[in-house]
Amino acid sequence: MSEQLLLSNIRNVLAQLEETIIFELIERAQFKRNDIIYRPGAFGPALGGKSLVGFHLFEIEKVHARIRRYTSPDEHPFFSGLPEPILPLLQYGENPLRPNSVNINNRIRPVYEKEIVPYICKPGDDKQYGSSSMCDVTCLQALSKRIHYGKFAAESKFRSDPEAFRVLCADGDREGLMKLITDPEVEARVLERISLKAETYCRELSGEGGNPKIDPEIVVDIYRQWIIPLNKEVQLAYLINT
Amino acid sequence: MSEQLLLSNIRNVLAQLEETIIFELIERAQFKRNDIIYRPGAFGPALGGKSLVGFHLFEIEKVHARIRRYTSPDEHPFFSGLPEPILPLLQYGENPLRPNSVNINNRIRPVYEKEIVPYICKPGDDKQYGSSSMCDVTCLQALSKRIHYGKFAAESKFRSDPEAFRVLCADGDREGLMKLITDPEVEARVLERISLKAETYCRELSGEGGNPKIDPEIVVDIYRQWIIPLNKEVQLAYLINT
Repeated sequence: MSEQLLLSNIRNVLAQLEETIIFELIERAQFKRNDIIYRPGAFGPALGGKSLVGFHLFEIEKVHARIRRYTSPDEHPFFSGLPEPILPLLQYGENPLRPNSVNINNRIRPVYEKEIVPYICKPGDDKQYGSSSMCDVTCLQALSKRIHYGKFAAESKFRSDPEAFRVLCADGDREGLMKLITDPEVEARVLERISLKAETYCRELSGEGGNPKIDPEIVVDIYRQWIIPLNKEVQLAYLINT
Repeated sequence: MSEQLLLSNIRNVLAQLEETIIFELIERAQFKRNDIIYRPGAFGPALGGKSLVGFHLFEIEKVHARIRRYTSPDEHPFFSGLPEPILPLLQYGENPLRPNSVNINNRIRPVYEKEIVPYICKPGDDKQYGSSSMCDVTCLQALSKRIHYGKFAAESKFRSDPEAFRVLCADGDREGLMKLITDPEVEARVLERISLKAETYCRELSGEGGNPKIDPEIVVDIYRQWIIPLNKEVQLAYLINT
C-alpha cells in the first residue's frame, strides 16, 4: 500500500491542518463579519461581478495553479478556468486514489461564508475588508484540503474490507456506507484533540492577561457541525462515484 | 495621540504577528531547504528570470495590491511596479507617521532566504517546492510587517522626548539614537514571550508523542539575531530620514 494511504499518515496530515484551521479562525474572529465582502457586485464592476472574497480567492487560485498546486491529488480548486501550470509537472509517486472528480468546494464556500463566519465573528462592519478576506482565503483553502482528505480515508477503509464496501456501493446504500465509514471513537478523539489545541491557542493568542479571542468550544463545534460531516460526505461521494 | 501610535497598541499587534511568524517557521521547517526555489532562472523562462519564490511573491503582491494592501501605512511591498488598487481607497484614520519611504524589504529577503531558511530547514531537496514557497511567501510578508512596525515604535518614542531625538538626528548620531531607542528590559520580555509561545506551539504541533518539529530555541534565536536588530534598523532609518 502506498505510503500516502496509510491511515496513520493521513491522520498526521489532518492533525497539521488542524493547526492552520484553528489559527485562521482565531485570526478571522478579530474582525467583524463585514458581510459586504461576501456580496457579489458590492465592490463594483472591477471585480467582474464577484464578491471581494470570491475575486480574491479566484486571483490567488490563478497564481497557485501556475505554480502547480492543483496537480496534487490532495488539492481542489474552488474555481474552474484556471491557467495551466508553468512549472514542469512533479512526479507525486503513485496516486493511491481511483480516478474521480469529487469536489464539494461549492458546498464548502457557502457553509463557511454563511454559517461559520457569522458564528465566529461579531456582527457589524469594521472596514477591515482586505485583512478579513486574507483570513477567509487561507481558511477556505485549509478547510477544503481538510475535508477532501476524506478521499484518502475512504480509499484506505475500502481496501481494508473491499467486499463489504462493494456490496453497499452496488446497492447505493448510503446509510450502510455511512455506518461503515464512521468510527465514533476516532471522532471523539479528534474532537478532544481539537479542544485541547483550541484551549492552548486561544489562551496563547490572547496575550498577557487578555480575554481569549474566541471561545475554544466554538472551534470544537465547527469541527462537529461542519468539518467532520462534510468530510464524510466526501468519503461517500468518492466511494459511490468510483 | 492617535490610537495606532499608543505603544501598548503597537505591542499587541506585534504580539499577534509573533504567532504568525512562529507558526510559519514551524510549517516551513517541515520541508527541506530546497535551495533551487531561491535560484533566479532555475525554473526556466516562464518565470521571467525570477526564482520560484520571487515569482510567487511578486504574483501574490500583485493580487494584494489590487485589493489595496499597500495603501495601509503598516504594509510594505517587496516589489515595485505593482498594479493600482481596484477597491475604493479606505480612510485609515489619521496616519500617525511622518511621510517617509523607508522600506528594507531588500534586506529582509536575503536574510530570510540565505540565513533563516538554512537555519530552520534540514539540508536537501524533497521536491516540495510549491508548499515550501507558500510558507516562504507568508513568512516573508509577516516578517516584513513585524520589522517595519519599527516606524510606529520610533514615532512614538520620538514624541515622548522630541528634543533629545532632534539633537541626535541633527548630529546624525546613529550610536546615540540606537541607545535611545533600545530598551533592554522590553527586549528581554519579548524574547521570554517568544520562548514561551515557541515551546507551546512546537509541542502542540508535534502531535501525540512526536518530536518537536523545530527546536523552540531556534525561534528565539531568529528574533534575537535578525528580527529585533532589523526592527531597530527601521527605527533608525525612520528617525534619520524624516
